Amino acid sequence: MKVAVYRREHFNAAHRLHNPSWTDEENVRVFGKCNNANYHGHNYELEVKVVGEVHPDTGYVVDLKWLSDLIQMEITDRFDHKNLNLDVPEFRTLLPSAENIAVVVYDILRKKIDPSLELKIRLYETARNYVEYPA
Amino acid sequence: MKVAVYRREHFNAAHRLHNPSWTDEENVRVFGKCNNANYHGHNYELEVKVVGEVHPDTGYVVDLKWLSDLIQMEITDRFDHKNLNLDVPEFRTLLPSAENIAVVVYDILRKKIDPSLELKIRLYETARNYVEYPA
Amino acid sequence: MKVAVYRREHFNAAHRLHNPSWTDEENVRVFGKCNNANYHGHNYELEVKVVGEVHPDTGYVVDLKWLSDLIQMEITDRFDHKNLNLDVPEFRTLLPSAENIAVVVYDILRKKIDPSLELKIRLYETARNYVEYPA
Amino acid sequence: MKVAVYRREHFNAAHRLHNPSWTDEENVRVFGKCNNANYHGHNYELEVKVVGEVHPDTGYVVDLKWLSDLIQMEITDRFDHKNLNLDVPEFRTLLPSAENIAVVVYDILRKKIDPSLELKIRLYETARNYVEYPA
Amino acid sequence: MKVAVYRREHFNAAHRLHNPSWTDEENVRVFGKCNNANYHGHNYELEVKVVGEVHPDTGYVVDLKWLSDLIQMEITDRFDHKNLNLDVPEFRTLLPSAENIAVVVYDILRKKIDPSLELKIRLYETARNYVEYPA
Amino acid sequence: MKVAVYRREHFNAAHRLHNPSWTDEENVRVFGKCNNANYHGHNYELEVKVVGEVHPDTGYVVDLKWLSDLIQMEITDRFDHKNLNLDVPEFRTLLPSAENIAVVVYDILRKKIDPSLELKIRLYETARNYVEYPA
Repeated sequence: MKVAVYRREHFNAAHRLHNPSWTDEENVRVFGKCNNANYHGHNYELEVKVVGEVHPDTGYVVDLKWLSDLIQMEITDRFDHKNLNLDVPEFRTLLPSAENIAVVVYDILRKKIDPSLELKIRLYETARNYVEYPA
Repeated sequence: MKVAVYRREHFNAAHRLHNPSWTDEENVRVFGKCNNANYHGHNYELEVKVVGEVHPDTGYVVDLKWLSDLIQMEITDRFDHKNLNLDVPEFRTLLPSAENIAVVVYDILRKKIDPSLELKIRLYETARNYVEYPA
Repeated sequence: MKVAVYRREHFNAAHRLHNPSWTDEENVRVFGKCNNANYHGHNYELEVKVVGEVHPDTGYVVDLKWLSDLIQMEITDRFDHKNLNLDVPEFRTLLPSAENIAVVVYDILRKKIDPSLELKIRLYETARNYVEYPA
Repeated sequence: MKVAVYRREHFNAAHRLHNPSWTDEENVRVFGKCNNANYHGHNYELEVKVVGEVHPDTGYVVDLKWLSDLIQMEITDRFDHKNLNLDVPEFRTLLPSAENIAVVVYDILRKKIDPSLELKIRLYETARNYVEYPA
Repeated sequence: MKVAVYRREHFNAAHRLHNPSWTDEENVRVFGKCNNANYHGHNYELEVKVVGEVHPDTGYVVDLKWLSDLIQMEITDRFDHKNLNLDVPEFRTLLPSAENIAVVVYDILRKKIDPSLELKIRLYETARNYVEYPA
Repeated sequence: MKVAVYRREHFNAAHRLHNPSWTDEENVRVFGKCNNANYHGHNYELEVKVVGEVHPDTGYVVDLKWLSDLIQMEITDRFDHKNLNLDVPEFRTLLPSAENIAVVVYDILRKKIDPSLELKIRLYETARNYVEYPA
């Protein structure tokens, strides 16, 4: 009897899409406005899904308060009100696209969540653009 | 050509998380504010997903008006403006966590929906905490 | 150059509408499902509006972090995961209707916010029912 | 390392559910208010999901600007502010139920999106009624 | 001690903007896609605001269940799943723009609500376009 | 017969709150995380309200397509995917707080909208923090 539980958190961050191995023209052609040298930003909504058995003593898959605190400590304390390119080491050499942010968040949380529990990340960059990992 | 159809309904209810086989201290430690002896409450948003073939005469998997009426009769008429612990027999001996509510809703609706149709329940306890069954 | 600033917070609570000076029949006739003796509950969304001059040094009317902390301390710490009728002294003898909750929240915050600043409260009981005070 | 990306677009359209091989009485009995001879309408929200590998040079599965332009050209330019029954050839002989609209959108976009990429359509007819194809 | 109470309802309707005293060219130039001869449609969200004193016996300005029933009977039963131009007499000779719909809704409800209570209508035609009357 | 019409647009931008006449310590004490030297960002939702008489020929206060194009040209083309502090001249010497952004947007649009029409700006910095000008 597996149940999925979801917890949503949010963070506000600046970022820029720029591939340093390309010319400026190539960067503008591919990334358009997202290449702005001075950065732009988003209110990111982060949805963390955990799947597992319901524990009969608690009625919980995991305590969502614990999950919220974990996301706070591992992700939002490090990403919120930051410049992802400059302030978050994971994106020093990795493009902070929504896709890559979701993979980074997954990799960080995967190490902290019991391997018996399935994990999936959804990240809303805007209300119209969002990504999910693993697909 | 299987299509999933979704119908959302809502109900407002009080509940309390309390394991009677534990001491009061254990209950507070595990359930925190959710253990409040006088109950608290939520606006629950219930999403019911049904998967099946589209009928060529109607363009419907199932009539969503029928599905809405079914949810109304089987779930919201029994859960809405109720105290889940005291007023809903299913939770007399079962912790009314979001996980368990979703399983109970699934078990009730599963008996009323044709076995050829797949069924999944998503329940929003708040905009930031929600669950899904089966996962 | 007056600007209005808004901060939203939320709390989850149980309540019951019951007028002790009436018979049970009158209470059911007037309050319907909201009169359930065992309580029901809501996810309350609280919007606090403060109007004043923008301070040229900060660009702020008030620091919304300060306003959020104030609401947390004065309102959500006292109302969240509570039974409004039983746990919150203001509603011992006052019906916890959305209207009265908004007035109580206003009266509490009014004492803590500089009189030169205008204050208004909006309270969402559900996505379809909400109130505002002063009107 | 497959990631899902989502793009949301919207269109406003009129439609009517009517099966011409049935009597008027049968149509009213099955489709109720949706059978109104003069049509009614909706704000349709369209969610397009594409699944594939993240390209290391761009951090993208697909450029969501490109996906948005594709949906605009292939779907919203043809469906928006239209009468689905009368103005959109695909529904001349096909009931424009949400289920069938989702299948039609899928069939149109499937031809324009690289076969190595998975595609799924979700269509919101209202905030409470929505469908997904493939299920 | 005046409090404002709000109730939201919704209806789905088709409409068309067309001024019969103009040429077809003028209509297209002014109304663009909204002039489509075969109609288009919307999910209209209707917000009704009533302002008055809180009654000490009930904690209510007005019973929102009563207000909801009134809107249902006077507005949504007549507008929902209808073609506003063809099915609703008020728009036979009046353009069913969002502005005019709000005024019509106001005029209908104003007659049914006690004159001591203030009334205001907000109508969402889409999530990005809405109107309010009186302003 | 005055009606208010509203149009919503959005832009994504980076910003930083920093008062150059203060020490770094003062800036951190007042602005906290919002003072981050490398900027952070938001999805700004901009609501523009215009109040006027309904024109009997069109049923419009103003054409919302025209209003949307005006906001696009005057505001979102200049603010979207920009660093407000570095890329938008109005904020070279003005703190880009939500309050100040709303005032700047008002001042820009006020010059382009007929003086007989009332104008009000609401700006959402997040779903929980927003401002309005004039109040």
